Amino acid sequence: MKSIYLRLTAGVFLASLIGCQNNKINSPDEHIVMQLQQQALSSDLAYDLVESLTVEVGPRLAGSEKDLIAVQWAESKLKTLGFDKVYKEPVQVPVWHRGEAKASIVTPFAQPLVITALGGSIATPEKGIEANIIRFDSLAALQTASSNDVAGKIVFIDQITERHITGKGYGKSVGGRSKGAIAAAEKGALAIMIRSIGTDHDRMAHTGMMKYKDGVAKIPAAAMSNPDADLINAMLKRDANITINLMLTAQNQGFATSYNVIAEVTGSSKPDEIVLIGAHLDSWDEGTGAIDDGAGVAIVTAAGKLIQDLPTKPARTIRVVLYAAEELGLVGGKAYAKAHKAELDKHYIAAESDFGAGRIYQIDYRASETAYTELLALTTPMTNNGVVLGNNRASGGPDVSMLPSQGVPVASLRQDGSDYFDYHHTPNDTLDKIEPAALQQNVAAYAQFAYLMAQSKITLRPIFVK
Amino acid sequence: MKSIYLRLTAGVFLASLIGCQNNKINSPDEHIVMQLQQQALSSDLAYDLVESLTVEVGPRLAGSEKDLIAVQWAESKLKTLGFDKVYKEPVQVPVWHRGEAKASIVTPFAQPLVITALGGSIATPEKGIEANIIRFDSLAALQTASSNDVAGKIVFIDQITERHITGKGYGKSVGGRSKGAIAAAEKGALAIMIRSIGTDHDRMAHTGMMKYKDGVAKIPAAAMSNPDADLINAMLKRDANITINLMLTAQNQGFATSYNVIAEVTGSSKPDEIVLIGAHLDSWDEGTGAIDDGAGVAIVTAAGKLIQDLPTKPARTIRVVLYAAEELGLVGGKAYAKAHKAELDKHYIAAESDFGAGRIYQIDYRASETAYTELLALTTPMTNNGVVLGNNRASGGPDVSMLPSQGVPVASLRQDGSDYFDYHHTPNDTLDKIEPAALQQNVAAYAQFAYLMAQSKITLRPIFVK
Repeated sequence: MKSIYLRLTAGVFLASLIGCQNNKINSPDEHIVMQLQQQALSSDLAYDLVESLTVEVGPRLAGSEKDLIAVQWAESKLKTLGFDKVYKEPVQVPVWHRGEAKASIVTPFAQPLVITALGGSIATPEKGIEANIIRFDSLAALQTASSNDVAGKIVFIDQITERHITGKGYGKSVGGRSKGAIAAAEKGALAIMIRSIGTDHDRMAHTGMMKYKDGVAKIPAAAMSNPDADLINAMLKRDANITINLMLTAQNQGFATSYNVIAEVTGSSKPDEIVLIGAHLDSWDEGTGAIDDGAGVAIVTAAGKLIQDLPTKPARTIRVVLYAAEELGLVGGKAYAKAHKAELDKHYIAAESDFGAGRIYQIDYRASETAYTELLALTTPMTNNGVVLGNNRASGGPDVSMLPSQGVPVASLRQDGSDYFDYHHTPNDTLDKIEPAALQQNVAAYAQFAYLMAQSKITLRPIFVK
Repeated sequence: MKSIYLRLTAGVFLASLIGCQNNKINSPDEHIVMQLQQQALSSDLAYDLVESLTVEVGPRLAGSEKDLIAVQWAESKLKTLGFDKVYKEPVQVPVWHRGEAKASIVTPFAQPLVITALGGSIATPEKGIEANIIRFDSLAALQTASSNDVAGKIVFIDQITERHITGKGYGKSVGGRSKGAIAAAEKGALAIMIRSIGTDHDRMAHTGMMKYKDGVAKIPAAAMSNPDADLINAMLKRDANITINLMLTAQNQGFATSYNVIAEVTGSSKPDEIVLIGAHLDSWDEGTGAIDDGAGVAIVTAAGKLIQDLPTKPARTIRVVLYAAEELGLVGGKAYAKAHKAELDKHYIAAESDFGAGRIYQIDYRASETAYTELLALTTPMTNNGVVLGNNRASGGPDVSMLPSQGVPVASLRQDGSDYFDYHHTPNDTLDKIEPAALQQNVAAYAQFAYLMAQSKITLRPIFVK
């Protein structure tokens, strides 16, 4: 059955190439596409890479000493793997020190809480902030509240993050984390504590970046675990007056230099045109950064290596970009877009792997509407690897999300994120959460994608703008 | 189908009563047995009790201030529920203060570890203990090691706890926790760190009691999470020399008075004979003590309440015992056995619920071999509630485990413990881990068991001794 299927899909694949207009390059070789998949599915390279990164480096908060060790690790690995070019580009990244985070319910029933400081938060006074809490279902509910009710209190945003394969529950709830401190401070709150943006029932709080706004008071911000949020709700049923003590010693400590680490497979006939596959090298500091984003680093590196080792290089250059400081606000992605501004029109397409290690089930694009249908045909062989052809509404991933506004086509290789937000930004982000076979499937998809894009004759621009 | 089944099992049940010799009491009423099940399966009492205990008291380490709040909570609840008698008996319990627990790998790759102090451990020096580790597969492997290899090091016992419905994996691995510090100190180790006795892959360490031995040096003892143990193994593959810094501020602080809290449904015709159903009131301090053992407290209390509310009380007295300080070494259980020594021959049978909130799938006994077969027949109605009739090798649960040696028959109502050791003795022991319907099934089983035992005409003694 398999061989018939392969012949059928190969037929579709070849048919798809009729009418392509990019005449300087040969059509993609269907045998190479299949071979890349087979090689990826039998290679341990990606797992070995993420194992090495999590064991030999571990947590690597951008701007920390460990971040620079991670940069060294990446440069060394990429050089050892034999990429045509390996280099790094400096990025100024904010330095934030987590310090300690403690909280407890003082009344009506004294109990300790499991919390974590949100990234970027300031400290509380040394003895903490002790105040009544006021609960909101969501950021939107807080935003419509009266300052009279909020002033002098600790805001508690209690939005539950729904589980979904696409991770869309995160998008719905994360605003409370990123913008909650601003909204709370505008109404005179003393601090903010959110229900973790996570789908688990573990007694672990999920960290993540939060923002302040010029002209609005900065207030301390923390997240509590889901069971702790449940506990507070149970107490609120008994007594509307809950007093919490929150103590953080977090500190913002200026800026440091980190690096985007880059490796290239030089294109054979169009070396100045770039197919970018990226991931971010930094991680939060409480886990070992296995699924976020050690997995992505491993996937795109291993995919690039498979193409590096092809007997004949594809036409365009494959650029593997390991971004700095994604967690602290897409810092490396923005720096890349700025540093490479003059070259962006030579970026054929870009994609980032930053959604854990679950299997890729779909590929979406953002190209011209005409090109999109051609892309579907071109990437039909990816269906053999379980990748369904999707839509033309991709954002491409966090660190390449600013590229479409500059005209750069992107693709999103959608991973099954059903359990991603169980572990995301917690101490639980460790190697054991990665299934080796799923990682191999990701490598196969990225290798096929990168090769097909590097040999594609399709004109992708101007991209569809919604 | 159900009614036919009920009639059939009722037939077996009635047949079983032929030949019983205990003539002072009436046979158990089959309608009451069924009614107890129906009432239990439609009652929220047990869930409300464990919710109240975890929300209004929460963590209640024996000997702490919260332990006494739990005692007050229990006395008050039992009185409110209208038991015939409610009283408490003092128990001297050790006082142990957890303090802080920190550890990190210093070389070859600096990384923080997630650990917890083991209960009863002493502190390290203020700056911690920094030493090479030596790994063992098990306590047995440590016990056969050479002192030359162990002296001056931190012992790492790396035994994996296997998942099983009976929890038997715990029995195989827990020796490393309880006796590891003695074995390590006898060979000159500076400290001991074990892989957590837990079946999860969460980055949470499992605490639990450890022991010292007179004449052997006391050394600090801690557990690390399973992912941390995996991390150390990954490093050991790269470098046999791993240095760890371990810092504990734990303190043993003498003794305090706690209480076994007891409620009774007075027997109608044999009030001096006792059917004991117990659980332990204390908990570890990092979770809220929901599955260990808030669930048990709720189950036996709700079961006793159902019998308290029967129009006609059964012959024997039902005694609900909420033990003190089980976690610190079955302290309340031992105190009860001592305080009630003269009365133990009047204990018809005893059972403790202390294995979480999973469904009961089997009931085992320890009685005479003759009585055992009669017990199987007597308790056949429990099969309607999913409880299979088991063997005659029960231990009865931790706090009643010392009673068989004094001749007291016991029963073990076996709960499905497949996920119990995922959460056991961690911050993750919270209310959300309890399925309300499973809790109801437990209450039904305990209510039926207690009623049947209180009305039983079977002579259980002398009990089988293996």
